[in-house]
Amino acid sequence: MSFLIDGLQYANWSEKIFRQMREGGVDAVHVTITYHEMFRETVLVIEKWNRWFEQYPDLIFQGRTAADVQLARDTGRTAIFFGSQNPSCIEDDIGLVEVLHTLGLRFMQLTYNNQSLLASGCYEDEDTGLTRMGRAVVSEMNRVGLVVDMSHSGERSTFEAIEHSTRPIAITHANPASWHAALRNKSDALLRALGQSGGFLGLSTYPHHLKDGSACTLQSWCDMAALAVDLVGPGNVGIGTDLCQDQPDSIVEWMRVGRWTKTIDYGEGSADNPGFPPMPAWFHDNRDLAAIRGGLRAAGLDEATTDGVMGTNWHAFFDKSFGAQAARAGQTRRAAE
Amino acid sequence: MSFLIDGLQYANWSEKIFRQMREGGVDAVHVTITYHEMFRETVLVIEKWNRWFEQYPDLIFQGRTAADVQLARDTGRTAIFFGSQNPSCIEDDIGLVEVLHTLGLRFMQLTYNNQSLLASGCYEDEDTGLTRMGRAVVSEMNRVGLVVDMSHSGERSTFEAIEHSTRPIAITHANPASWHAALRNKSDALLRALGQSGGFLGLSTYPHHLKDGSACTLQSWCDMAALAVDLVGPGNVGIGTDLCQDQPDSIVEWMRVGRWTKTIDYGEGSADNPGFPPMPAWFHDNRDLAAIRGGLRAAGLDEATTDGVMGTNWHAFFDKSFGAQAARAGQTRRAAE
Repeated sequence: MSFLIDGLQYANWSEKIFRQMREGGVDAVHVTITYHEMFRETVLVIEKWNRWFEQYPDLIFQGRTAADVQLARDTGRTAIFFGSQNPSCIEDDIGLVEVLHTLGLRFMQLTYNNQSLLASGCYEDEDTGLTRMGRAVVSEMNRVGLVVDMSHSGERSTFEAIEHSTRPIAITHANPASWHAALRNKSDALLRALGQSGGFLGLSTYPHHLKDGSACTLQSWCDMAALAVDLVGPGNVGIGTDLCQDQPDSIVEWMRVGRWTKTIDYGEGSADNPGFPPMPAWFHDNRDLAAIRGGLRAAGLDEATTDGVMGTNWHAFFDKSFGAQAARAGQTRRAAE
Repeated sequence: MSFLIDGLQYANWSEKIFRQMREGGVDAVHVTITYHEMFRETVLVIEKWNRWFEQYPDLIFQGRTAADVQLARDTGRTAIFFGSQNPSCIEDDIGLVEVLHTLGLRFMQLTYNNQSLLASGCYEDEDTGLTRMGRAVVSEMNRVGLVVDMSHSGERSTFEAIEHSTRPIAITHANPASWHAALRNKSDALLRALGQSGGFLGLSTYPHHLKDGSACTLQSWCDMAALAVDLVGPGNVGIGTDLCQDQPDSIVEWMRVGRWTKTIDYGEGSADNPGFPPMPAWFHDNRDLAAIRGGLRAAGLDEATTDGVMGTNWHAFFDKSFGAQAARAGQTRRAAE
């Protein structure tokens, strides 16, 4: 059984997009629900998703376990898994890790470009590594089954997260810097360490992460995927498109600036190019996802590895990552939920 | 299989009390986690419970479904089900009904003595019945599987909740007013309507709800239970002790006064008797619960009815009440969770 899974999207969600997920045969999507939003604001977004789940039960439902990906396939729907791109949602309260996991959060980035209470972002001049609270929160995330995501983190912080975490971590959306140099892309050394620890890389289609930007071809991207498979391992790579479909440019400004500065920070963009960049010609929405398969085969990946990158690798990662660490026999049922 | 279930406690929780639950062979307890606390404050209490579940996994775990009562029995632990005595926790936001249900809330009172956004409390001069928001919230509670609890509500509001709710409601802790007249006890007409609708009455041991108060004998209480069975029905009555073990008197003041007045309101107490009243001699903690069985048999209840009141009735009520209303085939798995 192969699956089609996208490991990162942050669209301006609508019935149209949910229908495109179905047209594209997408079994599961990890969706960003929050960036700089505090806990109560994050809960408001969860409430919005609950309304969508209620309104479109034939298209989508909330995913909580790897088994929900199979359920999605069996019932012709798409399982939606929640993630946060920054730890603002837990505020300064470690107890919110378990609360948000109970509400369905399955990935949380320790930082988004900037220093956080937990670690350093990839845009900071200094990388502190994991902070005191960062180490405590990673242990708590390990305990409950909330995946540590280091997509926007600094290199030292990411190495330390790999080291400190007792469960494999993820970089849900980034590419090898040796293919395209960018602050958000990751060094070969880091990607090798990620793979050796059982960690996971989701490959991004966001133009700022691509060689030739918006002009990047499918074949160039798939050649990069083959490189990533060599670096991280054939079972440790998937797709994490970073699709921001239908979002107004005000959203990319929110992502970059949040409430942390009164001036404009262009992040990966620039004053000349402040908005969302145009997506590559071969990837505009969920209906384009399945066609990546042909490119991967043309790039020389065998059938099994291609299946892995398209979704079975994410499925296996979900399976080992989303349950509680069962310390005692009595707790195993919880872990299996 | 018979169970031992207490349908309402609000103790000053501690390892001592959790061990008494085990010594008493208590399979499940509906615990109050919040009165006048707003959403974020309620989440802090849930965080506190999460710590207890982590610290005492051999004694307690969080109950979410009726099956968890069986799991508790099978593993020699007590399943803890969350409830709220007032709707402050949903603030003015109907979306918090589902969010709190996901976090494990299984009962919510529409009012606590006073008028709320949803209905009228039993201490108000005027009873509005269900408000506009009250009707909307009851429908939402029906949808997700959050039980409407009218223990502290006015009579008209309670009749309207029975009428409007598409699923049976509960009065988790009160007694027949025909046995002991008190604003918190319920009229025969109301109890009959409750039973006819499939609703549930949990019998209180709180002295202000008892004939002769703290001096009430076990046999008098069990005779009252036999009366309640006649009024509500043999399958619709259980225990809801209202045990407030080890609480300081500041807590009963919080229950009564919250933040709604700057003066003191004595509620069921008085200036002469402002604190928690002494419990009846035969009920001080969870170890005393099982001994009620003998009193019920002596009051003339047969074996099956006695089993029902001791716990199997609550178990059956949990079973039909805590799951989502499955509107579509695709949602049935959720409902069964």
